[in-house]
Amino acid sequence: MVRQSGKLSFIGLGLYDENGITLAGLDRIRSADVVFAEFYTSKLSEGALERLSAMTNKEIMALGREEVEDGTRILEEAKEKNVALLVAGDPMTATTHIDLRLRAHKESIDTEVIHGSSALTAVPGLLGLQHYKFGRTTTLPFPQEGYSPTSPYDMIMENLDRGLHTLVLLDIDAENSRYMSANEGFHLLQEMERRMGKGAAKDDSIVCVVARAGSPDCVVAAGPLSKLIAMDFGGPLHSIVIPGRLHFMEEESLGQWTNGKDG
Amino acid sequence: MVRQSGKLSFIGLGLYDENGITLAGLDRIRSADVVFAEFYTSKLSEGALERLSAMTNKEIMALGREEVEDGTRILEEAKEKNVALLVAGDPMTATTHIDLRLRAHKESIDTEVIHGSSALTAVPGLLGLQHYKFGRTTTLPFPQEGYSPTSPYDMIMENLDRGLHTLVLLDIDAENSRYMSANEGFHLLQEMERRMGKGAAKDDSIVCVVARAGSPDCVVAAGPLSKLIAMDFGGPLHSIVIPGRLHFMEEESLGQWTNGKDG
Repeated sequence: MVRQSGKLSFIGLGLYDENGITLAGLDRIRSADVVFAEFYTSKLSEGALERLSAMTNKEIMALGREEVEDGTRILEEAKEKNVALLVAGDPMTATTHIDLRLRAHKESIDTEVIHGSSALTAVPGLLGLQHYKFGRTTTLPFPQEGYSPTSPYDMIMENLDRGLHTLVLLDIDAENSRYMSANEGFHLLQEMERRMGKGAAKDDSIVCVVARAGSPDCVVAAGPLSKLIAMDFGGPLHSIVIPGRLHFMEEESLGQWTNGKDG
Repeated sequence: MVRQSGKLSFIGLGLYDENGITLAGLDRIRSADVVFAEFYTSKLSEGALERLSAMTNKEIMALGREEVEDGTRILEEAKEKNVALLVAGDPMTATTHIDLRLRAHKESIDTEVIHGSSALTAVPGLLGLQHYKFGRTTTLPFPQEGYSPTSPYDMIMENLDRGLHTLVLLDIDAENSRYMSANEGFHLLQEMERRMGKGAAKDDSIVCVVARAGSPDCVVAAGPLSKLIAMDFGGPLHSIVIPGRLHFMEEESLGQWTNGKDG
């Protein structure tokens, strides 16, 4: 196949707002011919895209879920132009972007990845929990009529049985501006506890919340589920961690956040 | 206790060189009174610190392992001044920094964390493997006289038994400028395979390498251990992934890297 002359750069915007982008990312936006952005797999704060656009003097076109998943427009442009696709967090954590990169390579379009910081790494660290003590990550989906999977509960239980922590990501429905709060997440876990009864999410289970990781008003909290479920963590994004066996230093770390201090 | 007037900012430098820092990080260096850096838990490319110093017009003092672990000098300065501690990757992935933050809080010193991109998130994504299919992360330590643990092998086996991928971080001995290569890592795994014989690292096991994640000459490779162990991946840092059960798209993704293409 003929090597195309364009390029597709996946650029991670990191956490929270326009200041989470790296110098490398900023440089790639400035040298791009076309700049797209997608925010249905994550979220940046209000106005961040506009400020990024002003900062780089580039028009940034926000794409919806369908256009990113379909990918045709992005790939067509990238055959002959330098195209940047901006993504909150690290760009290669979402299946959609892995798929898009694969398709670009099949069409002989060069790609590059400019990494960004991600909740996957930031959230455990903010709590002071050790990354190598985490088992599988899971996501709590918004409940749907006739569909209430308990797989996140099972995953937490499987990790707990082995003494491991679980990072619980909370569902994002960006097209309807719905971002699951930690409180909603705890309610869902309580409901699963009622159905499964294995003890992963009891009232006195120690649980953790990180709200707005990477922002100046990041909140970190740890304590019994019955206490945290009633706390107000403010705006999105929230994440939950269910800790397993705690090392001494991890226990001390969580002790810092019993009143939901600033992270 | 009296709230101190200083502050300690942990600033992630992200991957590879000075361009992995975020705008938020750059801003904090510029407003800091004292700037320290530590590179024994990770590594940036040659000259990155000097270029960062020139860019921000700040003197950056590189600290050795002992001074960071001891922490006294950093905490003393942070009682009255704005102190920035620069760390490659995301600053809260190393136990030393979690510990230092805890000690700062005990002395009523405010802290903040400016996140950076990390191999923990970047490496799985570059390979096109899905983060929620990873089990526990492990680290291969440099062999020492009379100490040859097989715990990394056991961890890989435990993940494989459950169909999960394993991110295998490779040891860093920065004070002696030793960074374990993927090839050394594979030799260690082969030796463990000879002792344990459970099949986690056979000659025909599919394994993956990411070299210099986040750099312009990042290399990504996937294939049988017997092939990758003989390949030259260039300079540090390297990481290994041992994949478990592959989804269709993951299999396709790994197929892109059979000749060690640029990531």
